[in-house]
Amino acid sequence: MAEITGKLAEFVSTLQAEGIPRTVRDRAALLTLDAVAIAVRAMHDGDSTPSLLAGFRDAGAGPGPCTVAGHGTRLAPAAAAGLNGALVHTLDFDDTHIGASAHITAPVVPAALATAEAVDADGEATIVGIVAGMEVMARLGRALVPPRHYARGYHPTATSGVFGATAAAGAVMGLSAEQMTDAFGIALSSAGGTLQFHANGAWTKRLQVGLAAEAGVRAAFLARAGFRGAAEPIEGERGLLRVFTDAPEPGLAVKNLGTEWETLEIGVKPYPACRFAHAAIDALLDMRVDAGDVRSIHVGLSRKAIAAVGEPEARKRHARNTVDAQFSMYFLAAAALIAGGVRWDDYPRLIAQPEIDALADKVQVWHDTAIEALYPRRMAASVRVVLSDGRELDRVVESPSGEPDRFPDEAAFRQKAEMLTAPVLGDAGVERLCDAALALERVGPQALAAAMRPV
Amino acid sequence: MAEITGKLAEFVSTLQAEGIPRTVRDRAALLTLDAVAIAVRAMHDGDSTPSLLAGFRDAGAGPGPCTVAGHGTRLAPAAAAGLNGALVHTLDFDDTHIGASAHITAPVVPAALATAEAVDADGEATIVGIVAGMEVMARLGRALVPPRHYARGYHPTATSGVFGATAAAGAVMGLSAEQMTDAFGIALSSAGGTLQFHANGAWTKRLQVGLAAEAGVRAAFLARAGFRGAAEPIEGERGLLRVFTDAPEPGLAVKNLGTEWETLEIGVKPYPACRFAHAAIDALLDMRVDAGDVRSIHVGLSRKAIAAVGEPEARKRHARNTVDAQFSMYFLAAAALIAGGVRWDDYPRLIAQPEIDALADKVQVWHDTAIEALYPRRMAASVRVVLSDGRELDRVVESPSGEPDRFPDEAAFRQKAEMLTAPVLGDAGVERLCDAALALERVGPQALAAAMRPV
Repeated sequence: MAEITGKLAEFVSTLQAEGIPRTVRDRAALLTLDAVAIAVRAMHDGDSTPSLLAGFRDAGAGPGPCTVAGHGTRLAPAAAAGLNGALVHTLDFDDTHIGASAHITAPVVPAALATAEAVDADGEATIVGIVAGMEVMARLGRALVPPRHYARGYHPTATSGVFGATAAAGAVMGLSAEQMTDAFGIALSSAGGTLQFHANGAWTKRLQVGLAAEAGVRAAFLARAGFRGAAEPIEGERGLLRVFTDAPEPGLAVKNLGTEWETLEIGVKPYPACRFAHAAIDALLDMRVDAGDVRSIHVGLSRKAIAAVGEPEARKRHARNTVDAQFSMYFLAAAALIAGGVRWDDYPRLIAQPEIDALADKVQVWHDTAIEALYPRRMAASVRVVLSDGRELDRVVESPSGEPDRFPDEAAFRQKAEMLTAPVLGDAGVERLCDAALALERVGPQALAAAMRPV
Repeated sequence: MAEITGKLAEFVSTLQAEGIPRTVRDRAALLTLDAVAIAVRAMHDGDSTPSLLAGFRDAGAGPGPCTVAGHGTRLAPAAAAGLNGALVHTLDFDDTHIGASAHITAPVVPAALATAEAVDADGEATIVGIVAGMEVMARLGRALVPPRHYARGYHPTATSGVFGATAAAGAVMGLSAEQMTDAFGIALSSAGGTLQFHANGAWTKRLQVGLAAEAGVRAAFLARAGFRGAAEPIEGERGLLRVFTDAPEPGLAVKNLGTEWETLEIGVKPYPACRFAHAAIDALLDMRVDAGDVRSIHVGLSRKAIAAVGEPEARKRHARNTVDAQFSMYFLAAAALIAGGVRWDDYPRLIAQPEIDALADKVQVWHDTAIEALYPRRMAASVRVVLSDGRELDRVVESPSGEPDRFPDEAAFRQKAEMLTAPVLGDAGVERLCDAALALERVGPQALAAAMRPV
């Protein structure tokens, strides 16, 4: 296994804004807006948020210079990163990187922002940190080989996340390559987080993503203070790519580092729902049929997608809470036709509505081998709608909207941010948040942080 | 796999002082004294301590009601537990539990003490918490089956430690069985820490033990606040006993729970050296030979012991720093004969002394199959000393001093504590620390905490 830690440490410690293509930096700013807008709303809507805040407070999230999204007080860097990381992932509305099978912004952006506020970094350093974190995290996610990483029981957003957060924090504070190596060696001590949350839909899914952000910030501060980390934490005999996966692809961790950009491979969610349902929602919205005219809806999916949004049918067909609804193809198909879209604010309005339940009863999910063949490269879906008059409408969506090849424009990001944050920040606050995030490189992290706080 | 989490949660949440035999509670107090005395000295002598404190401070260890050993200011519970956990393990002088292959007090005692200070628990609740944590941690350590756990690359003191710390904190704050189940389900998110520190003797060995203490405290506070943990975190498909070991023995996690006490199976170190060297040091001290009369010393060990204290010979024969000396059978044998013992304060005095190096050159380490046969049940050694006049002295020590069957008396604990803390606390301070720790159940955690602070 080639020397990977050293190459990544060198990359992170020498990365400069001018070495990152403009398109990549702009993409990072859009992704940052997406992350913070979700976090602001999650502070107010997240079912787990009150206990998350209370637990952090009681255990000791101390005061400091760093902003927690939508929160009035300011906290120490690690705590702010931890809470924001959990918040970005709380609504299951954050970005996706298919190759790494991970959500990238949740550990990376909060680590970069909290560190930037703590060390008073400028906007350029902050964007560089965010890109560094995304590049490291996505590459390690690929190198872990997601199916083999899952086979060990791990949660990629948490495991690769701690290294991404460490890279982000280390780049923002300007660690040397040697310090960055120590920081990665310290980060390994906090690599963890398993998929056991699936057993009961536990809130630890979002918590352990936040813990990765927090651990990354602390690893960077410890390394800066001279704390000695384990050598070769990524490629070593007891390092990330040995302990946490059955069959790593170490080369992917450093392939085309600094010349090809994983940041451009990150997709976002237009709908606050499981990514596996997105293609079908796209197809249904595109058909523009009237819900009253529908006899039946047949959604063709991969097996993995069916497991996520089709089963267990008993719980999902008539979803009764937001999380079940977000993972219910039946509910989501009905909502798409009846509400003409799937928006965060639709959930409380639509869940348990007789009209939704009735249309959900007309939805069938089936295993489509043509769709299966596209997986995991594409999270595709086929949709056939049979109308009352017997007509049939068919659509196949290979790439759901929000993927890199169908990446939303700035207006769409602003619209999503508005939908999420207007109830919290007000219209003027939304605009301030969008402007500050999109101009992060120029206006600096303090301006963005200020826009994340309620007025 | 039987339902283990529920049984352990029930045990922890219902444990009362009167349900714990007096001998077990007294043993817990002795082990507590051992842990805090080491931590006090480690605050002042630990090579990693300045950077550990700076990193925690910069990342955000906030103020609070909890004491850090030997430290002037008071911190929030999780930070205090984290720092104290790392400090207890910093000098490699803390306890050992052979069956769990783990150091028990380092994660457990700091979690219990910090929580007790935070919630103002009484002495009885604190001792109950310490016993609960030790019982849970040692049992999970056994259930992980150490050789199979090591095979996965994990560091048992960190992985089982987070559950022990969680049990300790949860018991101290009086969580219900349901809350305790959530707390364990949250703890799983922080289970981690690999053996990669072996690659370069990194300080992450001690750090990740501290992180386990910290995570346990936070898991308990989060559960108390209503945060929902993963179900079946120990026995589940992606739980501790699946993800972190190749071949668990789940039954050992709950065997004779509440009737047999793992706390009585914890040993302590009379010498600040690797446990594998203890039996040979015992034998050499027992022989009372004059160093000047020695022609050669032949130490028979198991292969595992040789790997720990015999190799790499090039670095270890003439140890040049404390850590190498602690893991050098050559140095330790020479020190035992020349200094008449192995004390913490001997290291700076003896390292690189020509007399020590010369005697170390006369030490041979060999693989003794009779000693091998006793491992891992006993960390034994055979010692033959050949004198200049040709006489041969032989000793076999099956159980090193400090093991449960050769457990030191109270006077020995006081002596060790004095050796460690007198330079920091002064003679009156030592007595106050010993008295407060040994009477913890009666005088309460605030008294012990006060005695841990420098005057």
